[in-house]
Amino acid sequence: MKSDSGLQQRIDQVLTPQLLSMRAYHVPDRSGLIKLDAMENPYSWPPEMVDEWLECLRQCTVNRYPDAGANALKQRLRQVDNIAEELGLLLGNGSDELILLILMAIAKPNATVLAPSPGFVMYRQIADSLGLQFVDVPLRADNFALDMPAMRVAIERYQPAVIFLAYPNNPTGNLFNREAMLEILELAPGLVVSDEAYAPFADASMLADQEKFPSLLVMRTVSKLGLAGLRLGYLIGHQAWIEQLDKIRLPYNINTLTQISAEFALVRQAVFDRQSQAIKQDRERLFQDLKQLENCQVFPSHANFVLFRVKGVTGAEAFESLKDNAILVKNLSSSHPLMQNCLRVTVGTHEENRLFVECLKTILAV
Amino acid sequence: MKSDSGLQQRIDQVLTPQLLSMRAYHVPDRSGLIKLDAMENPYSWPPEMVDEWLECLRQCTVNRYPDAGANALKQRLRQVDNIAEELGLLLGNGSDELILLILMAIAKPNATVLAPSPGFVMYRQIADSLGLQFVDVPLRADNFALDMPAMRVAIERYQPAVIFLAYPNNPTGNLFNREAMLEILELAPGLVVSDEAYAPFADASMLADQEKFPSLLVMRTVSKLGLAGLRLGYLIGHQAWIEQLDKIRLPYNINTLTQISAEFALVRQAVFDRQSQAIKQDRERLFQDLKQLENCQVFPSHANFVLFRVKGVTGAEAFESLKDNAILVKNLSSSHPLMQNCLRVTVGTHEENRLFVECLKTILAV
Repeated sequence: MKSDSGLQQRIDQVLTPQLLSMRAYHVPDRSGLIKLDAMENPYSWPPEMVDEWLECLRQCTVNRYPDAGANALKQRLRQVDNIAEELGLLLGNGSDELILLILMAIAKPNATVLAPSPGFVMYRQIADSLGLQFVDVPLRADNFALDMPAMRVAIERYQPAVIFLAYPNNPTGNLFNREAMLEILELAPGLVVSDEAYAPFADASMLADQEKFPSLLVMRTVSKLGLAGLRLGYLIGHQAWIEQLDKIRLPYNINTLTQISAEFALVRQAVFDRQSQAIKQDRERLFQDLKQLENCQVFPSHANFVLFRVKGVTGAEAFESLKDNAILVKNLSSSHPLMQNCLRVTVGTHEENRLFVECLKTILAV
Repeated sequence: MKSDSGLQQRIDQVLTPQLLSMRAYHVPDRSGLIKLDAMENPYSWPPEMVDEWLECLRQCTVNRYPDAGANALKQRLRQVDNIAEELGLLLGNGSDELILLILMAIAKPNATVLAPSPGFVMYRQIADSLGLQFVDVPLRADNFALDMPAMRVAIERYQPAVIFLAYPNNPTGNLFNREAMLEILELAPGLVVSDEAYAPFADASMLADQEKFPSLLVMRTVSKLGLAGLRLGYLIGHQAWIEQLDKIRLPYNINTLTQISAEFALVRQAVFDRQSQAIKQDRERLFQDLKQLENCQVFPSHANFVLFRVKGVTGAEAFESLKDNAILVKNLSSSHPLMQNCLRVTVGTHEENRLFVECLKTILAV
């Protein structure tokens, strides 16, 4: 390719300053590793279910555009989550796309996005990509609860157009206090998003509160349930909000294969319920096992992962030692001041969890 | 749902003015109709290819996140389109998402997006959703060629951050003059996107010009080739641009099923080449058939659709009469001053085209 001395100059001139200063979201290489880094359901489908699924896909017309309204899938989601007919429903190519749509919708000059921290990294990443002001309010250092005095001050001061509350929170795993959630809903001047990505493991939701709080949007995904490969998130909220957001949804954002496959899978909800049930039991076992370890502080979780802090070695050292043993977890040490020497491990299969605990035990015993 | 008198007020206060004034992209109901409205390839796959495809999907791990880099699929696209290794490649959930990424990347205050008109509606729709200034330069009324004097003035005046040139153009179907394209590349101060969605039917591309013009991005899609249901667009350009755009790509934007299915299909490129070949032949036949009709002006096409103008009846009347006969085309009459009484028909199967011509003949003979 011909060198162009003016190219970098043109790039600097044409692109937004926020993009130029951004770094890409890094997805680590995972080949050959036991993946306990990404909150994936470790279980595949029963073979006869795979057969039925493939037969179902046989009917699909890949030469035609998808149903832009994804109506069959939406009906299925309404049944599964018991979503009232009068509520609006918006589908996204993962929750990521829904976060993008929400932030595009409120992207006025000086609009502020608020979220507790540490939290899901895409809130900030996407806010940055749109040049929005992002304000984070640190959680309480002792138990990762919402710091309500600080939240009150931040809401009053920044009047955020949107507040993201992950319920349960990632990467800490805890479920925020319900009364605190309700107080934030009372105080918020704009939208509040309850990000319930981990709902299958939590037995808690703000869904029933939408009647009282029409500016509360509940965001969910089928990813943690066991369908991460399909990329399907959904947003439940008052029709008046959903209709507005739907205007900027790219019309064919949910491809045909995802529509058919998600609908197929959700008819067989019992399979995923059993898997989620097993994951919850294994989470408790993993929590207890980690609690027994020397030099390990473990935090209670309502999600399909467990956060823990190592002592004696650094988080980075523990991460690398695990990786040397072909186990991939997430090292959060440098992600936030509250996460020093913290790592997050996804609940895997019995055997994966056992290998992980054994390996970590050796690392921490040194 | 509880009524909230303050809800509309909050919506008006929180959302961007451009969103509030936008209208959603309308996808018409198509059930039971012969679909000649959306530039879809009318052919499905040979049954043995469907079997092989389903076997291929059997290996897919829907419980895991997709490969964020989509590396296998990218390698395949590089082979199929003969993309030089030193060029960058970015995948999108359809071209729509790539347009969004490009426009997010240049969304500075006062940034301008320029495109000839009539053109692909999503350029303007997405620019509007981001609050960007969109300038359209009408094509020449006689033959829909680029109006170069007007283009020169507009580029000089607006210094567009990006210029979209659909090559061939939708909805007019013509291929812009290559010398005009090159002159615009010389004059453009920012990015130029050659949108080659209809490349399979055109025997023309700007791909080889990227060596001389490092700010030329070539955008393609597998939709018109016959994979509209998968949602896969791709952008080819200088690594320096692609690396920047990749920072704001949502990391898992191409789902697993699309990655596997597109790779599978593109290995069998010969199937699609034969289909495209048939569509091109049928396009010429359709063109000739429409040329014979009374009260019908037909325009030459390098794409998989044909634009025509009706006389004696309005475009809306012709559209409705066709629809009454279960044939869905696109009525462009009110979309642009140059499109008065113009309709666009996708090249379908022999039989679909025959039915369409026969039906239109009756309508125009009245």
